[in-house]
Amino acid sequence: MFSKSRSRLVLVLSLLLILAALTALILPQNSYAEASSQTSSSYSGISPKYVFLFIGDGMSFPQISAAEMYAGALASPSEVKTNPLDFTGFPASGVASTYESDSFIPDSASTGTSIASGFKTADGIINMDPAKKIKYDPITRPLKAKGYKIGIISTVSLDHATPAVFYANQESRNNYYDIALQLANSGFDFFGGGGFKDPNGKNSRLQNPENALDVARRNGYKIVNTKQDILNLTSKSGKVIAINPELDRDAAMPYEIDRKAGELSLSDFVRKGIEVLDNNKGFFLMVESGKIDWANHANDAAASIHDTIEFNRAINEAVKVYKKYPDKTLIIVTGDHECGGLTIGFAGTGYQTFFNKLQKQTMSYLEFDKIVESYRNSRTQDSASLEDLYPQIKAAYGLIRAEDPDAKNFPDMVLTDAEIQRLKDALKRSMVKSSERKLTSAEQLLYGSYEPLTVTLSHILNNKAGLSFTTYSHTGLPVPVYAIGAGSELFNGSYDNTDIYKKMASILKIK
Amino acid sequence: MFSKSRSRLVLVLSLLLILAALTALILPQNSYAEASSQTSSSYSGISPKYVFLFIGDGMSFPQISAAEMYAGALASPSEVKTNPLDFTGFPASGVASTYESDSFIPDSASTGTSIASGFKTADGIINMDPAKKIKYDPITRPLKAKGYKIGIISTVSLDHATPAVFYANQESRNNYYDIALQLANSGFDFFGGGGFKDPNGKNSRLQNPENALDVARRNGYKIVNTKQDILNLTSKSGKVIAINPELDRDAAMPYEIDRKAGELSLSDFVRKGIEVLDNNKGFFLMVESGKIDWANHANDAAASIHDTIEFNRAINEAVKVYKKYPDKTLIIVTGDHECGGLTIGFAGTGYQTFFNKLQKQTMSYLEFDKIVESYRNSRTQDSASLEDLYPQIKAAYGLIRAEDPDAKNFPDMVLTDAEIQRLKDALKRSMVKSSERKLTSAEQLLYGSYEPLTVTLSHILNNKAGLSFTTYSHTGLPVPVYAIGAGSELFNGSYDNTDIYKKMASILKIK
Repeated sequence: MFSKSRSRLVLVLSLLLILAALTALILPQNSYAEASSQTSSSYSGISPKYVFLFIGDGMSFPQISAAEMYAGALASPSEVKTNPLDFTGFPASGVASTYESDSFIPDSASTGTSIASGFKTADGIINMDPAKKIKYDPITRPLKAKGYKIGIISTVSLDHATPAVFYANQESRNNYYDIALQLANSGFDFFGGGGFKDPNGKNSRLQNPENALDVARRNGYKIVNTKQDILNLTSKSGKVIAINPELDRDAAMPYEIDRKAGELSLSDFVRKGIEVLDNNKGFFLMVESGKIDWANHANDAAASIHDTIEFNRAINEAVKVYKKYPDKTLIIVTGDHECGGLTIGFAGTGYQTFFNKLQKQTMSYLEFDKIVESYRNSRTQDSASLEDLYPQIKAAYGLIRAEDPDAKNFPDMVLTDAEIQRLKDALKRSMVKSSERKLTSAEQLLYGSYEPLTVTLSHILNNKAGLSFTTYSHTGLPVPVYAIGAGSELFNGSYDNTDIYKKMASILKIK
Repeated sequence: MFSKSRSRLVLVLSLLLILAALTALILPQNSYAEASSQTSSSYSGISPKYVFLFIGDGMSFPQISAAEMYAGALASPSEVKTNPLDFTGFPASGVASTYESDSFIPDSASTGTSIASGFKTADGIINMDPAKKIKYDPITRPLKAKGYKIGIISTVSLDHATPAVFYANQESRNNYYDIALQLANSGFDFFGGGGFKDPNGKNSRLQNPENALDVARRNGYKIVNTKQDILNLTSKSGKVIAINPELDRDAAMPYEIDRKAGELSLSDFVRKGIEVLDNNKGFFLMVESGKIDWANHANDAAASIHDTIEFNRAINEAVKVYKKYPDKTLIIVTGDHECGGLTIGFAGTGYQTFFNKLQKQTMSYLEFDKIVESYRNSRTQDSASLEDLYPQIKAAYGLIRAEDPDAKNFPDMVLTDAEIQRLKDALKRSMVKSSERKLTSAEQLLYGSYEPLTVTLSHILNNKAGLSFTTYSHTGLPVPVYAIGAGSELFNGSYDNTDIYKKMASILKIK
């Protein structure tokens, strides 16, 4: 099948590689630790022009495996087959440790700082040292100085920790207004996805804080927040802040499982970002899928899976650029830490999984929370009964009572007596407003800080599917790193999350 | 610092690599999936002479991270620092999926078959296809035919699934006698570690089964089972079966946490195996740390950590060979699957871990089971009281009551009222013989098939340390693969466990 000239090239290449390998053999070998760092952290090729860094917040091996197995189980119900997410087939891949300076279990501010700036720091800090004295420059700043356009996209608010580490320095990730001001003054080129948590500086220390978006406008930003205006953006639009028209209570985009037909997706923002950033000198685009994390905090496996699958689609927008300019593009995909302690396995289901059951879930915990809230507001604590909510439970989670006419068709979805008791106990706690709810320590293990009825439904459905969670926080599991394109081979192997910065810096010739 | 001739070599090497890279750029690029498999599965160098395959049964990222964090927390109590296991610093590393033909959550027979022979199969099958018709040849057979000596070491019985996949073909991993016969007839050179579960064929279908060890002796095997005889073995000892003098109820070596000073360790067996196998034509040595798996089944984090740390020491025996013959040695370290759904994180401890608490544990669940058993035999169900067992609980797990004089010094180790209630409930179930114990489904989640009191103590200590488990079975998490030496670069990237066989076969020029 090879053309003659290609065969000759292959021959030449093979000979060269053999010669190179022989030459390498003659050289005295160092300790393997040195050998490792020599092969993995320096790059002498031409820096790529189109650089993508995709961060799945709270996404590690369990979240990726769950999505691949779910998709595989749906596509091939009669056999055991994963449906690999495309990015897991990237030619280079490695594993990064995620601990922060003050805990083996990190937060997104510290891990983001490690990825963006190459330093370990403490919980909650954005690009500063643990003592909050030294400011670290994220890789975006020297890249901007080199002429790269800079884009930052997130499904959560643009002032949230992970996007913030790419443009801000703050003692606390909670300084949302100050972070928004730093965004407005960053000079970076494209911000897209979620909105802002405190644009008016209600929680700021300033006397008369100016609206951060007004500051941005003054700095020349075009701010758009309708679908049409966002779709109309082009490479001639100048500096842009594009805010999704639909935002949740945290100024984040909707979960993919809740997104309505026609509403913008993360993929849409990535496609548009690439278009707006397109220029002769190249760009660096960071894309965060931030609600994979939130879904796992809430132990909502289905919401995590749907956002992870959409994340893969968004990454495929970058792959299109790679396919057009393979030698000028670099795509890196990673997570910042694991979240929830998700396991593909549960004591009650042993060696079996039933991913098809998760397909019954039609909305995220956040949407079901609204149903619970409206029920709480419509009933007294004493008059509340699980009976009232079975239709909504069936519609949202596919879980049914033995009396349900569908019980014969879906015996696996029938709630056991013990499960019904757990739901009744949870409903009792859900009938108290969260601000007035005092949980015992046993109840805290059961519900975390979540709506008791909703999180219990998530637990029951997860467990029926053969999945389980151990925590409402992050965990210390390392994260995978996948890469394709110019310099991608540096991302093979085992390393620390600060090395992700170092490898990018080497490839992009920073410092 | 470079000598002149070395500088010149480096220059030549660099030029060749640049040329090779440029040549590669000129070639039309295929889809990246193909690019990936092209770079990672073929080897054209000289096959290594000393090949080591280390398999941590049930060892995936959580087990490795827990060991590294535990060791780091002990070595540097005042800072957050991992103490990396040496093998995690090997220059090449990758990640392998582990699903089997009939489940996303596999067993050791099917995953072992994938690693040893390169085929997916069903739960419980040793080197045969899921229909149990086709026999697969493990890599050891063609290697033996090539002149390599073959060694197989395991901390569990030598007829257990993981060692068995390197010399047997069986419809069921439970055919222990038939497996032992295949060992005796394998012609392989060194077997060491645990003993045999059914050497006399009590469970075999044969009328008058011959003792499998007698068959081995007839085939020329020297069988040794004292420390002195094992230490006296040399490369002149011929074919050897070396059985550890101390064996547990399953014919396995003791847990590392239970091993007494002077007793043989896994490292000792690896050191001796290397010595016995030493010859001009080279060897292939498979080493399984099998009780990492069992510890995680029992949700015993401390036992898992100690066995993982000893596994690292055993691997370092192979590293000594690598350091002597770096271009003739290949060491591969992997796990066959995750076990227990271990997470570094627990709902009750949030973002904190307290690994130092695990240091208080002085024995494995298996040893504490003996204490429970002897207590059960000494009391009636009605006269049993947790009070009696507090001294043993303190000695084994460091857990104390508020009334304990040490409570002031170790407030973190004090049992809460809720924990004491859990222990009382568990003791009540432990006072019934396991053969007569009928557990509710809620109790099955709490205790699995383990001694209720012991497993509850493990859960309480784990949770206090910030760790948690979700199952008593395996999980679907992928496993890491680490490699060093000739051909090791093939083990970078993401692939399936069957590819571990394929990469070894390419490096060792099999077929």
